[in-house]
Amino acid sequence: MIFVLRPSATLSDRQRLVHEIEKLGARAHDVSEGSTLAVATQSAPGASTSALGALQALPFVERVLTIAKPYKLAAREAGKGRSVVSIGSVPVGGDSFAVIAGPCAVESELQLRASALGARDAGASILRGGAYKPRTSPYSFQGLGADGLKMLRDVGDELEMPIVTEALDPRDVELVARYADALQIGSRNSQNFPLLSEAGRTGKPVMLKRGMAQTLKELLLAAEYVLRAAPAGAAASVILCERGVRSFDGETRNLLDLASVPALQELCHLPVIVDPSHATGRSELVAPMAKAAVAAGADGLMVEVHPDPLAARSDGRQALRPSEFAALMEKVERLLEIEGKQLATPLRRP
Amino acid sequence: MIFVLRPSATLSDRQRLVHEIEKLGARAHDVSEGSTLAVATQSAPGASTSALGALQALPFVERVLTIAKPYKLAAREAGKGRSVVSIGSVPVGGDSFAVIAGPCAVESELQLRASALGARDAGASILRGGAYKPRTSPYSFQGLGADGLKMLRDVGDELEMPIVTEALDPRDVELVARYADALQIGSRNSQNFPLLSEAGRTGKPVMLKRGMAQTLKELLLAAEYVLRAAPAGAAASVILCERGVRSFDGETRNLLDLASVPALQELCHLPVIVDPSHATGRSELVAPMAKAAVAAGADGLMVEVHPDPLAARSDGRQALRPSEFAALMEKVERLLEIEGKQLATPLRRP
Amino acid sequence: MIFVLRPSATLSDRQRLVHEIEKLGARAHDVSEGSTLAVATQSAPGASTSALGALQALPFVERVLTIAKPYKLAAREAGKGRSVVSIGSVPVGGDSFAVIAGPCAVESELQLRASALGARDAGASILRGGAYKPRTSPYSFQGLGADGLKMLRDVGDELEMPIVTEALDPRDVELVARYADALQIGSRNSQNFPLLSEAGRTGKPVMLKRGMAQTLKELLLAAEYVLRAAPAGAAASVILCERGVRSFDGETRNLLDLASVPALQELCHLPVIVDPSHATGRSELVAPMAKAAVAAGADGLMVEVHPDPLAARSDGRQALRPSEFAALMEKVERLLEIEGKQLATPLRRP
Amino acid sequence: MIFVLRPSATLSDRQRLVHEIEKLGARAHDVSEGSTLAVATQSAPGASTSALGALQALPFVERVLTIAKPYKLAAREAGKGRSVVSIGSVPVGGDSFAVIAGPCAVESELQLRASALGARDAGASILRGGAYKPRTSPYSFQGLGADGLKMLRDVGDELEMPIVTEALDPRDVELVARYADALQIGSRNSQNFPLLSEAGRTGKPVMLKRGMAQTLKELLLAAEYVLRAAPAGAAASVILCERGVRSFDGETRNLLDLASVPALQELCHLPVIVDPSHATGRSELVAPMAKAAVAAGADGLMVEVHPDPLAARSDGRQALRPSEFAALMEKVERLLEIEGKQLATPLRRP
Repeated sequence: MIFVLRPSATLSDRQRLVHEIEKLGARAHDVSEGSTLAVATQSAPGASTSALGALQALPFVERVLTIAKPYKLAAREAGKGRSVVSIGSVPVGGDSFAVIAGPCAVESELQLRASALGARDAGASILRGGAYKPRTSPYSFQGLGADGLKMLRDVGDELEMPIVTEALDPRDVELVARYADALQIGSRNSQNFPLLSEAGRTGKPVMLKRGMAQTLKELLLAAEYVLRAAPAGAAASVILCERGVRSFDGETRNLLDLASVPALQELCHLPVIVDPSHATGRSELVAPMAKAAVAAGADGLMVEVHPDPLAARSDGRQALRPSEFAALMEKVERLLEIEGKQLATPLRRP
Repeated sequence: MIFVLRPSATLSDRQRLVHEIEKLGARAHDVSEGSTLAVATQSAPGASTSALGALQALPFVERVLTIAKPYKLAAREAGKGRSVVSIGSVPVGGDSFAVIAGPCAVESELQLRASALGARDAGASILRGGAYKPRTSPYSFQGLGADGLKMLRDVGDELEMPIVTEALDPRDVELVARYADALQIGSRNSQNFPLLSEAGRTGKPVMLKRGMAQTLKELLLAAEYVLRAAPAGAAASVILCERGVRSFDGETRNLLDLASVPALQELCHLPVIVDPSHATGRSELVAPMAKAAVAAGADGLMVEVHPDPLAARSDGRQALRPSEFAALMEKVERLLEIEGKQLATPLRRP
Repeated sequence: MIFVLRPSATLSDRQRLVHEIEKLGARAHDVSEGSTLAVATQSAPGASTSALGALQALPFVERVLTIAKPYKLAAREAGKGRSVVSIGSVPVGGDSFAVIAGPCAVESELQLRASALGARDAGASILRGGAYKPRTSPYSFQGLGADGLKMLRDVGDELEMPIVTEALDPRDVELVARYADALQIGSRNSQNFPLLSEAGRTGKPVMLKRGMAQTLKELLLAAEYVLRAAPAGAAASVILCERGVRSFDGETRNLLDLASVPALQELCHLPVIVDPSHATGRSELVAPMAKAAVAAGADGLMVEVHPDPLAARSDGRQALRPSEFAALMEKVERLLEIEGKQLATPLRRP
Repeated sequence: MIFVLRPSATLSDRQRLVHEIEKLGARAHDVSEGSTLAVATQSAPGASTSALGALQALPFVERVLTIAKPYKLAAREAGKGRSVVSIGSVPVGGDSFAVIAGPCAVESELQLRASALGARDAGASILRGGAYKPRTSPYSFQGLGADGLKMLRDVGDELEMPIVTEALDPRDVELVARYADALQIGSRNSQNFPLLSEAGRTGKPVMLKRGMAQTLKELLLAAEYVLRAAPAGAAASVILCERGVRSFDGETRNLLDLASVPALQELCHLPVIVDPSHATGRSELVAPMAKAAVAAGADGLMVEVHPDPLAARSDGRQALRPSEFAALMEKVERLLEIEGKQLATPLRRP
């Protein structure tokens, strides 16, 4: 922990801080530079981190810089590999690149099946679709709820695709987990801690989307809420999803931060996938960004596919038609070769 | 609704769009400028807004600009005044400027009473304190929960201060509403739609904090979720709270957007207050920003006061000591005179 | 300097770093926390800061945190007061609150005089007006150039108001300095280092506007370019101007960061003023933000006043009419009383 | 042009606006939605756009939405293809993918040659290197100036690589243009209009980097300044360079906005390249982002290569060693195959 003192701090302020740190059982080093006074603490077995941190309320302290990465279960430590998380029998991560596709919202069984067929035939192995939709306006279509879940399950079983769908409310988590192979937590809920914990408790894999203005550290701490809540013995199973952050430029819906993919892969052991549909909000930008995600080293993609975007009840502007999706997937497969990966396929049991 | 066409669009694309619009029963006007083709629709009784909006999925449409303000219950319409929302018997809004103060988190009855006394004696009329704390890290102090609620109620009753406290989980809303005079919805939950609706259902006033990267329009739509859920006959009762948005500069914790105060007051009829504590994260900046909020025309303040910031279990760096808070309140009272407002006080019943 | 190592770094990597640091003549302390390895350096007379910093290119180093504030001439050190900078004979800073007002662009002598009269009569003491206008589009009005400078000088002399005007091009700095009492460097040029140095060389006071996405540290380093270039013996004379930063929300033109005012006043000794006109871009928000700036402790204001905003050739949407400006100034004077300051007036020579 | 009226506007305000618009010779259409009043104008031969725009200063107007794309020379119009811009004899754009590589700053002829050799041998065809360096701090290394230019020219000639280098000051543009095959305008100067115009006047190709918080529209308007200044008969020759924008997350130096590549390619006819080095600031992220740029459809890359990053006088943390660069280029070539492009090579004259 590094305490940087305010410009008005004096040498005796620094002396007082050193004294307080030592009282708490830690060692203190002078790391002042130029006219800026600063003190570093060295970890000590007996010293309480939170008591040390509280010293930032001393009136002459400007700020405290912490060194430790606060996420523990998500952290990637020296010598440990990266995790593969399975959704149903489809492995996500390692050399298995998973494509999750389907409509933004489940609108009808007909629409869902058409979308799922288009997705599967082009190489997607996991089906997505929203039954509970988080909509900015209360006057927008909010999803079919439990009926949508059933349609997802039926179509998923029929086409042998595991399904991922979003849970919005901790009270619905159990129901969603009964139908879904993986739970999605959306951007707007990326710091909804009761929901994160409830999702973790199900023991199902959780696909966690980055919040609108969430730092990578905060995203990993959100993953930590899920991982900590997982039942004893359940494997750590969170998949992170980059989907763009808020930007000052309205040209695209969000600003896709592809560098977060390798940056997260360095910081943690969890698979990292990319959602180019919500990131851009414009169907003509989805393919270039999906391809870029593969080349950036992502572990998978989540793409919206709709048989008739003009008739979509939400986000039609960003949906790919099945034929557009198929054209994209051809390129994705060629890119995966360069990365030394394959499209994920369900593991067949003997 | 204005449809702007892509650079590659042709005159016959525009013609097709006009045709589609007219098929839906609306009128279309050519509003192209330079080489950019555009079509405006004129509202018509029979035409469905969402069907019109879906036309943005036409492959030659670049974007759709909408004119209507999508929030209806929150909107301020010509000729209607601004609302006063009462927390307990304390009016917030109009010429009644409410100061809500207390600790970040309820830590003990002793700490809470000391903070509340300091707050009340200096002129605060409403007590705040967190019983459920949304913490970025699962390893941080999460609040005392139901015990904290009871302490708040006891101290509030003792000092005749109504209380505001945060609800994090839709399953706790009923319990929180039993103890609190107003419910706070925090920044991280500013688009947690089930929580917003549940809070609205209680009929209690809701103090809604702006999200980290939330536009004013999105904030007003979040308020709309609350207002729509309110029981029949209950008065519209949301108080908006500006608390800073995420910034690129780490000098302050957040970037306080004070212009949002008059901007929101123009767009809606709801009271708008300011939280300078979370906005800045540094106690030495709280007083200047609190004063600035008064001068910007805010309807109230929410300030963190702690009897011993060095011992605080959360956010001690931004808490004012009671003496600092009292010094601030003297200035606030003088500023209110210029604004033609008074400090809110409980309405005494005859 | 604190070196934080990458998650994959090993103890022997840390050992190598310690060795490299000691080779450069500095002391190294272990400040690792949890599983994150880190090393702090302690300043030593012989050690080169830039050679130490270059060690961040070691492949196992994640990042380097520096402690020293890199601006030296602008920094506020313990025990030293804050500076007052005079524009012409008008002092800016200390208890002298300066209001700079006038049109966005000089359009004609008639327009300029009408604006200046309105400004002066309401209490402004310094005249602003753009002769060289930095316009986002090359097709917009670019200012009257040298003719505008002459009009400014004439009207300023006539009304006994010193003038501030923007320089855009290092080649024009000398000419601008011949006419103006202070040079303005605009937001778009906040890191135009040749222009900053050239402005500093004139020895005239420089009013430096914060860049669109400039951190306070970068703003102070920009000031450092000016201060370093000032002729020997010339007093340090930069005035910083907060004018809003880029935001994700289009409700206002920019996002006025008023907390930067007290934050800058803590970090440096230079006066800090606020431009509420460019910050908001909407005339109805100018008065609330101007008042808020006074209450936040600003040392002055810069406000656009136009006799006929409908006829303005640039930024009419944000200009105050003289009557609106006069109403604002009445409030400003009352607010200044609370701050213990007065409106700046020219110092009369005996 | 769409005029949206303030919530407090009345029907007679709208009537007045219609009247003012018609007085200016344009047609007005009612495009109100819900309770929000709005008027659209239809272009008319006689009507002045700027006079229409000035109507936004009417006190009841909330905002004006413009339809026209304000950049004309950069715009991509229906039916016209995209441009190829040559630097020296190396074509950039179309199916010719150009890799520009070299050190951040020219430090010595030895360092430059080692870097250039590594770059060329791996497949780069254009040499970069800074002779004039825009440094945030005046105390950092500012480049070798004219000596650096000469070294660039000598090494470029020796290795038959055209050179690109940055101009910072309009007064240096002529000198830089004498030595360089293309001029770079850096992020900090992306709205330095005199510099943009001066660069355009040379008739040399200009490589224009996106500003820290610059919208795509503003970037295209900056290009417009260059294109407008080009001598009569000179081909339009600007290359746009995405290099990341400012972000709230310190994990990477900037936030690389790869979606800007296809978005710009839709809006304009100019080649768009990507600089992954400044975008990320971390050498381990350069390769993933360079590859992603190829897959996103970029027309080229600019990458920093240094023979000994530990000894670099600037930005060593983001420089690739020649061996790392060579490994990247192998992947780039395979990716280009998928895109149907080849690495740019100098056009041999017969």
